[in-house]
Amino acid sequence: MSFFPEAPPAKYVEVPIVVRFGDTDPFGVVFFASYFRYCHQGIEEFFRRLGLQPRDVFRNYEKGFGLPIVSASCDFFHPLRYGDTLNLAVFIIQAKSKALTFGFHFYHVEREKLVAKGHVTLVTIDEDWHSRSVPDYLRSALEPFLPPVQTS
Amino acid sequence: MSFFPEAPPAKYVEVPIVVRFGDTDPFGVVFFASYFRYCHQGIEEFFRRLGLQPRDVFRNYEKGFGLPIVSASCDFFHPLRYGDTLNLAVFIIQAKSKALTFGFHFYHVEREKLVAKGHVTLVTIDEDWHSRSVPDYLRSALEPFLPPVQTS
Amino acid sequence: MSFFPEAPPAKYVEVPIVVRFGDTDPFGVVFFASYFRYCHQGIEEFFRRLGLQPRDVFRNYEKGFGLPIVSASCDFFHPLRYGDTLNLAVFIIQAKSKALTFGFHFYHVEREKLVAKGHVTLVTIDEDWHSRSVPDYLRSALEPFLPPVQTS
Amino acid sequence: MSFFPEAPPAKYVEVPIVVRFGDTDPFGVVFFASYFRYCHQGIEEFFRRLGLQPRDVFRNYEKGFGLPIVSASCDFFHPLRYGDTLNLAVFIIQAKSKALTFGFHFYHVEREKLVAKGHVTLVTIDEDWHSRSVPDYLRSALEPFLPPVQTS
Repeated sequence: MSFFPEAPPAKYVEVPIVVRFGDTDPFGVVFFASYFRYCHQGIEEFFRRLGLQPRDVFRNYEKGFGLPIVSASCDFFHPLRYGDTLNLAVFIIQAKSKALTFGFHFYHVEREKLVAKGHVTLVTIDEDWHSRSVPDYLRSALEPFLPPVQTS
Repeated sequence: MSFFPEAPPAKYVEVPIVVRFGDTDPFGVVFFASYFRYCHQGIEEFFRRLGLQPRDVFRNYEKGFGLPIVSASCDFFHPLRYGDTLNLAVFIIQAKSKALTFGFHFYHVEREKLVAKGHVTLVTIDEDWHSRSVPDYLRSALEPFLPPVQTS
Repeated sequence: MSFFPEAPPAKYVEVPIVVRFGDTDPFGVVFFASYFRYCHQGIEEFFRRLGLQPRDVFRNYEKGFGLPIVSASCDFFHPLRYGDTLNLAVFIIQAKSKALTFGFHFYHVEREKLVAKGHVTLVTIDEDWHSRSVPDYLRSALEPFLPPVQTS
Repeated sequence: MSFFPEAPPAKYVEVPIVVRFGDTDPFGVVFFASYFRYCHQGIEEFFRRLGLQPRDVFRNYEKGFGLPIVSASCDFFHPLRYGDTLNLAVFIIQAKSKALTFGFHFYHVEREKLVAKGHVTLVTIDEDWHSRSVPDYLRSALEPFLPPVQTS
């Protein structure tokens, strides 16, 4: 399995995205920074489908953890324009003891085309921004979406 | 004196604004919501020129007050485009015991034209979001910019 | 009828809004500029419910008209926070021969509360940004949502 | 030389960045998508220091080329908060015949710390979005900032 498979893994959450006024550059093409906002929107919806409130996952003062983003990357293959509609496939690429990496495939609905791919890595921290392990309840909730363990 | 004078009052702070990628609509014209972000940027710079840190004014946990926005309005006379440069005049329209209203004049630098006017009202609140009076130190700092008292 | 009725007029389009990361201020409260983006999202959805593509309405090169925003205003009664969900009621306040004014009521779903009200006026222009009348096909599409003619 | 050197190459453009309201997440930490907007702001300023108007570089209808972004990546080492000030170092990592890669180092001014690093790749296209070579005038303008040719 390549790190960025052409097709998303079997288990993914599909999030419809509507390109909005303010998401484009002055030439009508979606601004690259907007894709990263869409990625975050995708993670939020991913958590919601799992029955988790995003605000309780990104910072949970009660349970003493947070989930900040430590890296993000995106490749853009085809331009998107205002009025286009997107399906965003959100899936887990990797779940380490202290980090989660989400993958994103952006599909142009009308043209049935993969137009961009990205990934975002979050790490689990405690109240002092020190690294800590992913809480058990969160790992359990993610379980159905975890990629199969690689053997070789 | 009209509520929105054609020329800004004598005492104003001038803030240069550069229209950025992501500030426009898909047709290259500055998105109306961006003007309100510029207004906030104007208020932030206004406070900085007064020697105040914006973050200590919008919420000051130590001194027990906050300054949320309760209304905002803008009129747009001429379109602005990506690449245009702006001078934003920021001034105080009204300072009541528990509220401040800022005015904004947007000037297109190259065309020497007033292209938009707006105003934003903030109220002073305590920790429980109840109305309270503007702190003395803030009123003193604003003093040189307060409009003359109206008599009639 | 007051200009901003407490309840939205009988005919309105309801648009669900999810507060996203990036929509708030540093204190977790929805940034006032975000409400104006929500208003635009509301207008876009309003047109979609009418069977119109937003991109064909905001600028229609073929039919030779555009619909830029000339004024916008919003009053904020209660703070909204990340994780809150909104119902946005979008309705037409006034349809003049060359201008349309949309009204917006922001309802906090969980607290069943009106938290903000706003309005946005758009004017019809031709290719040279001169004022022109609202195209017939657009007026017809809007017909079911037009407020009753005022007599007195 | 590593692809992302710890210190920026000798020739870079320094761009001051002020974290604005609306740039953070609900917890007061700068939203990761904002860094990508800062990157674009950095590229715009980079072109300005070269005497080029950004709008004439990103799309130049007269000269028949455009410069869309095809990939972007960023690593975040330390959180930034509202009120922090940044120095952004913008430099050229690689200039190929049909592509330019910019590098970005984000320095926290008060803490004198490298807080994030990123890179963005743009490709030169013609009017039909086909790949074409970087125009000579643009390459000449970039010359003083091009990294030394690697031998070995």
